[in-house]
Amino acid sequence: MALKVVSPDVMHKTEAGAVALGLASEGEVVIEGRRLLQAVAQRAPGARIAGLLVQAMAPRGQEVIIGATIDPTFGRLVAFGMGGTAVEVGRDVTFSLAPLDREEARRMLDRISGAPILRGVRGQPGVDHEALVELLLAVSRLISEHPEVSEVDLNPVVVGERGALVVDARLLLAEPPPAPEPSPTQDEILREMTRLLRPRAVAIIGASAETGKIGNSVLRNLIDGGYRGRIYPVNPKAQEILGIPCYARVEDIADEVDVAIFAIPAAAVIEGMEQIGRQGIRAAVLIPSGFAEVGRPDLQRQLQEVARRHHIRFLGPNIYGYYYTPDSICATFCTPYDLAGPVALTSQSGGIGMAILGFARSAKLGVSAIVGLGNKADVDEDDLLTFFAEDRATTCIAMHMEDLKDGRAFLEAARRVSPSKPVIVLKAGRTGAGARAARSHTAALAGDDKVYQDLFAAHGVVRAPGLRDLLEYARALPMLPTPRGENVLIITGAGGSGVLLSDACVDEGLELMAMPDDLDLAFRAHIPPFGAAGNPVDITGGEPPSTYRATIELGLRDPRVHALVIGYWHTIVTPPMVFAELLVDVVEAGRRAGNAKPVVVSLAGDVEVEAAAALLFSHGIPAYPYTTEIPVEVLGAKYRWARATGNLPAAPA
Amino acid sequence: MALKVVSPDVMHKTEAGAVALGLASEGEVVIEGRRLLQAVAQRAPGARIAGLLVQAMAPRGQEVIIGATIDPTFGRLVAFGMGGTAVEVGRDVTFSLAPLDREEARRMLDRISGAPILRGVRGQPGVDHEALVELLLAVSRLISEHPEVSEVDLNPVVVGERGALVVDARLLLAEPPPAPEPSPTQDEILREMTRLLRPRAVAIIGASAETGKIGNSVLRNLIDGGYRGRIYPVNPKAQEILGIPCYARVEDIADEVDVAIFAIPAAAVIEGMEQIGRQGIRAAVLIPSGFAEVGRPDLQRQLQEVARRHHIRFLGPNIYGYYYTPDSICATFCTPYDLAGPVALTSQSGGIGMAILGFARSAKLGVSAIVGLGNKADVDEDDLLTFFAEDRATTCIAMHMEDLKDGRAFLEAARRVSPSKPVIVLKAGRTGAGARAARSHTAALAGDDKVYQDLFAAHGVVRAPGLRDLLEYARALPMLPTPRGENVLIITGAGGSGVLLSDACVDEGLELMAMPDDLDLAFRAHIPPFGAAGNPVDITGGEPPSTYRATIELGLRDPRVHALVIGYWHTIVTPPMVFAELLVDVVEAGRRAGNAKPVVVSLAGDVEVEAAAALLFSHGIPAYPYTTEIPVEVLGAKYRWARATGNLPAAPA
Repeated sequence: MALKVVSPDVMHKTEAGAVALGLASEGEVVIEGRRLLQAVAQRAPGARIAGLLVQAMAPRGQEVIIGATIDPTFGRLVAFGMGGTAVEVGRDVTFSLAPLDREEARRMLDRISGAPILRGVRGQPGVDHEALVELLLAVSRLISEHPEVSEVDLNPVVVGERGALVVDARLLLAEPPPAPEPSPTQDEILREMTRLLRPRAVAIIGASAETGKIGNSVLRNLIDGGYRGRIYPVNPKAQEILGIPCYARVEDIADEVDVAIFAIPAAAVIEGMEQIGRQGIRAAVLIPSGFAEVGRPDLQRQLQEVARRHHIRFLGPNIYGYYYTPDSICATFCTPYDLAGPVALTSQSGGIGMAILGFARSAKLGVSAIVGLGNKADVDEDDLLTFFAEDRATTCIAMHMEDLKDGRAFLEAARRVSPSKPVIVLKAGRTGAGARAARSHTAALAGDDKVYQDLFAAHGVVRAPGLRDLLEYARALPMLPTPRGENVLIITGAGGSGVLLSDACVDEGLELMAMPDDLDLAFRAHIPPFGAAGNPVDITGGEPPSTYRATIELGLRDPRVHALVIGYWHTIVTPPMVFAELLVDVVEAGRRAGNAKPVVVSLAGDVEVEAAAALLFSHGIPAYPYTTEIPVEVLGAKYRWARATGNLPAAPA
Repeated sequence: MALKVVSPDVMHKTEAGAVALGLASEGEVVIEGRRLLQAVAQRAPGARIAGLLVQAMAPRGQEVIIGATIDPTFGRLVAFGMGGTAVEVGRDVTFSLAPLDREEARRMLDRISGAPILRGVRGQPGVDHEALVELLLAVSRLISEHPEVSEVDLNPVVVGERGALVVDARLLLAEPPPAPEPSPTQDEILREMTRLLRPRAVAIIGASAETGKIGNSVLRNLIDGGYRGRIYPVNPKAQEILGIPCYARVEDIADEVDVAIFAIPAAAVIEGMEQIGRQGIRAAVLIPSGFAEVGRPDLQRQLQEVARRHHIRFLGPNIYGYYYTPDSICATFCTPYDLAGPVALTSQSGGIGMAILGFARSAKLGVSAIVGLGNKADVDEDDLLTFFAEDRATTCIAMHMEDLKDGRAFLEAARRVSPSKPVIVLKAGRTGAGARAARSHTAALAGDDKVYQDLFAAHGVVRAPGLRDLLEYARALPMLPTPRGENVLIITGAGGSGVLLSDACVDEGLELMAMPDDLDLAFRAHIPPFGAAGNPVDITGGEPPSTYRATIELGLRDPRVHALVIGYWHTIVTPPMVFAELLVDVVEAGRRAGNAKPVVVSLAGDVEVEAAAALLFSHGIPAYPYTTEIPVEVLGAKYRWARATGNLPAAPA
């Protein structure tokens, strides 16, 4: 028998010493009952005791945990994890949005690290998966269909070969959260964001003739950047600025203005918003800081109230502004950026925005847009995703974020966009310490990181582990064709690189193709007899360009090979630029012949390899000097995206 | 009762269905005994059955595994891990060299992920650690003192609050391995390596006048590199090469030559070694390939035999040669390198050697030596460690390796060197797939990676996860002063960087200092009221240079702060170079005042931050643009080194 103290004041029975197990006789129950009551009196003084519960011992089996909770970012979630003491240490748990469907419930069972134990190891039988699926669905219904339920905790659930038994359960009830406000339609959001990011006319509130002032930098950048729309500086003290007629007040502008860019102190912004609202301007870019981030959430709320009243959508406050290169718009006080390309980048923080700008310029990264989100008092990531989804200039979206205002809206937008355009996210505040810093920075509650990890993966979002990864993924992913299968082949001139590239492939969860005999023979025809067989194909170091060419052509041509990782070794026989040019030639010929496959390159050599890498990048081939990891990491990110978005069959082809 | 089938042919009883547990009566034993015998007959047909073993059930408790084995690289090892099905999935196990001492046995219990379970979680009591320590020591004696024992497996061991019970045990016996040859003394190795790496006179066997030939490149590099010793080209077909008199045969050189550098085909090398041996030359650099790596281990064995007979120590074969900058020696066919500095780098692979060279040149990394090890038919990592330990030019050693010929010798050398000079290792072939590639490349058996991980850490070796990490660690570690405690403080101009830097600190196992109230007040005196309190110190983005200066000075001065991570945000108010110069100034003043602390910098900004990073690096301050991860990674590596080598008290100061 099992014996438990029942008390409304004891939530965690084991910790309170309120549980005794495996009692065999009435006498034991009596003795243990006394002991338990003493233990509880000691560990939880004053706890009200409702009684003692005697139950049959649960059958032996695997302990798991099933639960549900309301997450401040994502709303109602279902959780599943391994139970017992192991879960305390390993935290082997996974989350999913409620309500679940049966397929997702099954995937949850497979997603935890302990999944092999559930399937059965060392000759032991697996557990009853369908019984767990039914419980997950029941818990999902409980949290979804009963607004007063705020938490469900079935812990432990003992599951065996047949059936699952809930040994202990608790439910928490709470005041149901208010119903969310009705969201605008996708079409409305798209229209509003298009107005905001592609304005035909802009007003600069606080334009200035004084160099160094934000209102001067913004105006100068719009002009120097080559913006072809109409520009209206607004400043009561100037007749004209930088050769453009200036207006004393917004009301004086006769034209229809799409966007007002604010470059005035925080204290004046709310009145400014009233003015543009009265003029019918429906979009604003709020550069000024001085709101929630400096401890003035009241000002920020006023801002939101005015904007709502006038139907104004706005970016910020507390941002650097934004770039939209297809229209040559640099609506920012930072330096102009004009290298147009397929990547849209956003950042919540201004510092990270500057790092994006610097990296992009240094790496010659073509961008469609760079957008600062700052305090996100209005426009946030899902609004931008809706715009970028339809934006023909954008094929890849990379976002830095510290929190999400509405996790569900973001996931829904990401799920729509990501199959056609990779969505890459750097979620800051991943760790406990990081999350604390996020709170003090933006007063935002950063949710448990595992929740983000599971939900991002389930909705096709590619997560970048760090800032440099975000930038490298953004640079490489739009270049790489979508792989048609899991077979990765390494071709290397340096055996040593081959080993490290193999290590990196395993780290990234990539499948090193098992080399078919006929293909092995075909490779052997091109390489010295002592070159290594199999995968990596080691062509050895002293080989001429023709060997690189022949083997890479073979890899591109053979339909069983789905992606190539090339390890180049700088030698006198095949210098870096000769290699780079031949690789461009071979890859472009392959594309023309319909063999577009992801090709990434690691370059081991003297400094000349840097120019070779730049040449390869300029032809759409991601190539990196002095590293065997980064090329494989970007390929790994492409594969994660392809798998998560259904662009690659789940089973290896 | 527990019931087991006893058979010499059944090694893994559970898998064979040969175990029944929890039997309560004679009847059950009889029934289950029949069932087990049937199961074994089915799953292991033909297995000889010695009988059935009836035992009392083990008491409830935590299952652990204790074992010992002979590793091809490191010899006799003791293993400890969590038992039960969890170990099959999580592989929560740790290794140590046998024989163990009591302290190391205790550390093993703390090193596994399940250590908290052993200490007791959720109010449950911990297990009897001393009982496990005694078992570990017993197993250690068994494998150390009985050469015929090749494997010990106590699995499971059930451990409770008092005592531990070995439930099942197996021992494997084998022919004891031959006793190792007597090793030379440290003094001998040092003398030999000094002769090899700091020769007063070299002969180039196969010197050539023809550009592009290896024998030409080596001679040219020695001359152009500024080598001040005597150079003797050897080539029967030339009178002089590059203005230096040439000798037809080694025997014709009247001088005492320290090193012969071979640039002739593999087939001629063995005869050449005989000749130099007869001449009394005691060191050689064997550039040629064509030995074990091309499937000719026989040639390599001949080489070793000739060398042993003539007492010749040699590098290679199959290498690019080596650089030793204090003597301006470029004994290699690669391009010369002359930026002298504190880092010695070695690589097993030529490709990785070229990547080292290129990165070093690009990053302006000062090196003392770059050495190719290739097939390691003679000289290997522990020989070089012995040399670098005494080499005054070297303060940090970075090594790329695919295998170790003698793991114990390496660990002993590393343990001697690492407390005074960090030893950083990139161990290739870490993963299963990587290990396979290593075998085909060097015919070397790459051991289980977990063994390397545990033994490296226990001997003070800093492991680099990838090639770029090896290079970044090598660049930064010699610059960073040793921290005097665990308190890391982040000071940042960009709140967004602060969050990412915090994430990175947690990832690297760094301790974010809990901010004392008085110090918090002191920081607040310098920053705006809305700047974030605590750690990170967020000075906010619009601040002038004086704010960076005051806060960083405060962090350097306060003895409770042990390391600083600085997040810079590019603004007009504090441009990149202004920041870099003030930081150099503050850090150098701190050093003069005795406040030498590790300071690392993340630079978020436009491309001007690249020049700022270069300036900071040139003053010994590791600084990185567009990344919040790398500065924290190098600081983390410094901390790992300091903790593992006793340079930092184990408990947070």
